[in-house]
Amino acid sequence: MRDTERSIRVALVGCGYWGPNLARNFHQIPGSDLVACCDLNQQALEKMGRLYPSARVTDDFASICEDETIDAVAIATPARTHYVLAKAALQSGKHVLVEKPLALSTREASELVTLAEEHSRVLMVGHIFQYNPAVRYIKQLIDQGALGQIYYLYSTRVNLGRVQSDINALWSIAPHDISILIYLLGAEPEWVSARGATYLTDGIEDVVFIDLGFPGGILAHVHVSWLDPSKVRRMTIVGSKQMVVYDDVADEGKVKLYEKGVYRKGEPGFGEFQYRVHSGAIMIPKLDLVEPLRVECEHFIACIREGRRPETDGVNGLQVVRILEIAQASLKAGGEPKRIQEVEASCL
Amino acid sequence: MRDTERSIRVALVGCGYWGPNLARNFHQIPGSDLVACCDLNQQALEKMGRLYPSARVTDDFASICEDETIDAVAIATPARTHYVLAKAALQSGKHVLVEKPLALSTREASELVTLAEEHSRVLMVGHIFQYNPAVRYIKQLIDQGALGQIYYLYSTRVNLGRVQSDINALWSIAPHDISILIYLLGAEPEWVSARGATYLTDGIEDVVFIDLGFPGGILAHVHVSWLDPSKVRRMTIVGSKQMVVYDDVADEGKVKLYEKGVYRKGEPGFGEFQYRVHSGAIMIPKLDLVEPLRVECEHFIACIREGRRPETDGVNGLQVVRILEIAQASLKAGGEPKRIQEVEASCL
Amino acid sequence: MRDTERSIRVALVGCGYWGPNLARNFHQIPGSDLVACCDLNQQALEKMGRLYPSARVTDDFASICEDETIDAVAIATPARTHYVLAKAALQSGKHVLVEKPLALSTREASELVTLAEEHSRVLMVGHIFQYNPAVRYIKQLIDQGALGQIYYLYSTRVNLGRVQSDINALWSIAPHDISILIYLLGAEPEWVSARGATYLTDGIEDVVFIDLGFPGGILAHVHVSWLDPSKVRRMTIVGSKQMVVYDDVADEGKVKLYEKGVYRKGEPGFGEFQYRVHSGAIMIPKLDLVEPLRVECEHFIACIREGRRPETDGVNGLQVVRILEIAQASLKAGGEPKRIQEVEASCL
Amino acid sequence: MRDTERSIRVALVGCGYWGPNLARNFHQIPGSDLVACCDLNQQALEKMGRLYPSARVTDDFASICEDETIDAVAIATPARTHYVLAKAALQSGKHVLVEKPLALSTREASELVTLAEEHSRVLMVGHIFQYNPAVRYIKQLIDQGALGQIYYLYSTRVNLGRVQSDINALWSIAPHDISILIYLLGAEPEWVSARGATYLTDGIEDVVFIDLGFPGGILAHVHVSWLDPSKVRRMTIVGSKQMVVYDDVADEGKVKLYEKGVYRKGEPGFGEFQYRVHSGAIMIPKLDLVEPLRVECEHFIACIREGRRPETDGVNGLQVVRILEIAQASLKAGGEPKRIQEVEASCL
Repeated sequence: MRDTERSIRVALVGCGYWGPNLARNFHQIPGSDLVACCDLNQQALEKMGRLYPSARVTDDFASICEDETIDAVAIATPARTHYVLAKAALQSGKHVLVEKPLALSTREASELVTLAEEHSRVLMVGHIFQYNPAVRYIKQLIDQGALGQIYYLYSTRVNLGRVQSDINALWSIAPHDISILIYLLGAEPEWVSARGATYLTDGIEDVVFIDLGFPGGILAHVHVSWLDPSKVRRMTIVGSKQMVVYDDVADEGKVKLYEKGVYRKGEPGFGEFQYRVHSGAIMIPKLDLVEPLRVECEHFIACIREGRRPETDGVNGLQVVRILEIAQASLKAGGEPKRIQEVEASCL
Repeated sequence: MRDTERSIRVALVGCGYWGPNLARNFHQIPGSDLVACCDLNQQALEKMGRLYPSARVTDDFASICEDETIDAVAIATPARTHYVLAKAALQSGKHVLVEKPLALSTREASELVTLAEEHSRVLMVGHIFQYNPAVRYIKQLIDQGALGQIYYLYSTRVNLGRVQSDINALWSIAPHDISILIYLLGAEPEWVSARGATYLTDGIEDVVFIDLGFPGGILAHVHVSWLDPSKVRRMTIVGSKQMVVYDDVADEGKVKLYEKGVYRKGEPGFGEFQYRVHSGAIMIPKLDLVEPLRVECEHFIACIREGRRPETDGVNGLQVVRILEIAQASLKAGGEPKRIQEVEASCL
Repeated sequence: MRDTERSIRVALVGCGYWGPNLARNFHQIPGSDLVACCDLNQQALEKMGRLYPSARVTDDFASICEDETIDAVAIATPARTHYVLAKAALQSGKHVLVEKPLALSTREASELVTLAEEHSRVLMVGHIFQYNPAVRYIKQLIDQGALGQIYYLYSTRVNLGRVQSDINALWSIAPHDISILIYLLGAEPEWVSARGATYLTDGIEDVVFIDLGFPGGILAHVHVSWLDPSKVRRMTIVGSKQMVVYDDVADEGKVKLYEKGVYRKGEPGFGEFQYRVHSGAIMIPKLDLVEPLRVECEHFIACIREGRRPETDGVNGLQVVRILEIAQASLKAGGEPKRIQEVEASCL
Repeated sequence: MRDTERSIRVALVGCGYWGPNLARNFHQIPGSDLVACCDLNQQALEKMGRLYPSARVTDDFASICEDETIDAVAIATPARTHYVLAKAALQSGKHVLVEKPLALSTREASELVTLAEEHSRVLMVGHIFQYNPAVRYIKQLIDQGALGQIYYLYSTRVNLGRVQSDINALWSIAPHDISILIYLLGAEPEWVSARGATYLTDGIEDVVFIDLGFPGGILAHVHVSWLDPSKVRRMTIVGSKQMVVYDDVADEGKVKLYEKGVYRKGEPGFGEFQYRVHSGAIMIPKLDLVEPLRVECEHFIACIREGRRPETDGVNGLQVVRILEIAQASLKAGGEPKRIQEVEASCL
């Protein structure tokens, strides 16, 4: 930021579980100011007011939209309100950062993308892991070919708590995994299937298992749940040359790179193949010690300032929502695999 | 065994990876003698001959069947030969212990069950985890209601190596998980679906993800692979009152019992439910230090001696094979869920 | 606190590494107000000013002492300044909370204890682990006899960083272990010995190994270092009936209670004893989720309000300093063990 | 071994806990034959007879010494008998492998060294870790300078069980650590001190803490115990450039190499030094999958065949015994540090 540039003035909408983290970052980042906090919960507002005396607190979202001194709105409200709030903010000419999922349907997400283009505003979705040094490091490994051919990936993202009653574990947790997969593989899946089960709230799956078929025969598997004895955030990427385990809750070694593979011993022709297992060193790289949310917020501010598209822009948000929507259809159909194209055609 | 009873004379067929463990146990168990070892591989035979000088070694399986002094045959050969060898042994009047899977089709497995009944011989399948103190402990917890209502279970059984070229990871590895699930829940699944991927040998899936729906809405998930950076053998059982993690490769604490659950705060009617997470102590029980294979082999000998049905008898072997067969059909159909009854009807 | 009671007005002196945590707690605790922050570093002061606009910031410590509206002073400055600052604060009639170690000599620490008594003021030292739920839980186990006879304890408190250049690892880190040991055993050691080594700064040991002999033949061992590849904060307590491992950086299970012991098989007389190892269940208790520093700060405020002696009062601080002083003498003497009494006599 | 060379004929003396492992290796190694097993316990002898029908079993040690067809004797008896048995074997012209410790006094160990020289026989002590791929890997790192200047090392070797009633934990367990330290540092310590405590058997310390000062200010610390809740075999080596943790019971990563260090920020002169912590990648090397005992036994056979001195020869055994003896003296003196030279002078 040049000294002469004025700060981007940001309002936070939604001061519950996650919102305060956004507030803290927009308050601390050079080049942005936290100027307003909005929530219906008075206690949450009071707390924000104490922490950030220079920010206006209000329970009137319309007043945020009408305030012409506000440049951007960060939305961290329950998922079912994302569409309505983001739409209103974009229509008022604000730049918008929405927590994941961008919306609860492809139609709504598409509309937000279109609105952002019409109003020439930045629309960004908080796919935070795309700003995580571990994920970026793995992306580099894949792009450099260090893993060889990618065979398959699987992810477990479970814990006990943060039970939602409006959206299921698929919509609440899996956006992280799906956005990571798209980012790492640089492609969208060709098909998806999902199976889940409901124990606590009627119609809301507490645990969901998702399979996604990516181009080139790459298989991805995702397990999400808020009913698990342990907090697990682990993704394994199996390549022909090397393998990676990314454990986001590990103390030491969030990323482990295994020099491991299975190779054919001989050529086909005479009898069965036999395989040789190679198992070499394990490397735990040093990762940057940055807060991914800080990187995300700085990127939002930089995109506004420079008129750039965010890496996790509205289209990226739409991609993820579309896959969730099809996964949800598979879930309702008892796990029947669904091609992405078919649904895509029907929804446009 | 009474002193006056003579020992059960056992022949081992298949002296490769697993067979020597069976040999060692039948050699050591009071009440059984290892009298013969059979394999086509001369090196393997020579090794067995050195270890057990009192056992005859032969590459002629027919001579085992014809030897009237042999009471029982333990079969630890590649899975595709289980049916033919077990059939011949039963027809020769031998008691038979077959490694898992019992056979490669429901038809073959059924035939073995019928043969064993016709010849009044013990037919047992090596579902070894049913003889594992950890699994038995968890079974007790479930039966006593200590876990409350069972919600769901998931199992990961992966490692690097032991790549098969005749059967896929489903048939090679998942029999363990399926037999454990049936044992723990005391029920067969109502439906199954499976998705997998093939990287090393055409037509042989290296990784498979399986879902099984058990009565009462209990969901089970199984992940098997021989292409993974780490050896994992872990099953999680989530109940309404407590949760269990069974990690078979843990040094300390193969079984962990978590006093954890999610409870509704209030009654429905006014607004959304809210949930309270309870997280109490963790208990790591002391388990018997027995070798599960020893328990299995002793059980085989006891069943022969007392004319009892083994806990993992031919019918249990058939149950698992039938589920594998239907899972295989789902795998070939891209993951389409299959009801167990439909296929059952068609195969009888 | 009764509604009519006014808040205790606290000033923080030392706004570096640890001070801000004290500030946050005195700001948040009902019944106390953070009214002033003092440091020589202007950047640190500015940061505190932004976080707590209602607190006065100053680099003039004398002005804190002279401010009659201030009830209490919390001192979190480098250890070599503790004595001078605490003395001045007590002489000005303030209640004082000093970070560990209370002072750098028995003489200084004694003087502070005397001053606090003369002025009838609360003098408390920040032996924070005494307010830690894990340590309190273990204290209960010991007092109830659940561990049987205590045999020995050992503690490792190492990490990489926080290298001090004015005090060595003994004075910087070991106060934690020594205060925990005195608390758990309810006794002072009879002798101490220490050996260490110096690598970074002349005369400042980076690593120190300390042995302490407690009454009843209980041996304690402490290893402290700021030159270690891993962060370890682990104490093991070995009793005749049960054993405890307290790992303060464990994610799951900071306290593990092992039902383990070694028992004599028979009675003496004929030949050698033989021993039987008993190894039972492991229990991981649920501990209160409180911030130990919050408990500590609330205790300080309560003691001021109610005229009580803190659990970690000046005398407790003096005990620890005296042991450190004797350990330091042993360190300088190449590890020669020193009786506590001898030195005690000479220092009074 | 050339085809024309005859096998070295080995007798095992002591068939209890460890002896059978020696038997298995001398039986399997090309170039050696296990020809006799000797023990006073008939059950142990019978078991060896069953396992190795070609080996003679006897409870008469003299008959082993008198048997001129026996080339070498491996001694795995209780430590107090090592000297007498090894002496007799050497005097009978046998090559001798003795388990650690070589003897229970410097005088006895010296005598064995002299005897071996007089009779031109190989005398080797079973300092097994010197044949361990992990230890050899670390030795290479140190010799190549990869760790920079070595600052200090510490080792924890504890577990529950294997309680000895004739020798204490120092003599029973610490020979491993002391031999590793001498090997890694290529030097003997200049001084040693030890403190311990006795709980189970009068006069036999169950837990001992040892400090050793090596040339160049390198400090080493060793903690041994057979009264501990967990099995730990871990050594940490702290260097100026890198650090190593060697955890012998780790599943994955017995050796971890940490790119970590602390560096001075500036030059002395103006005020205090300040330090910068560098924390880079962690590397887990692939180690050879060999059984250290096999390497040890092969080395013994090769030394006999080629007339070479073993890497862990009698002199090495004597070095370790001498340090143990001085550590024992320190232990009896309450931990008083003892110089190695002083005692050395007195014992020669």
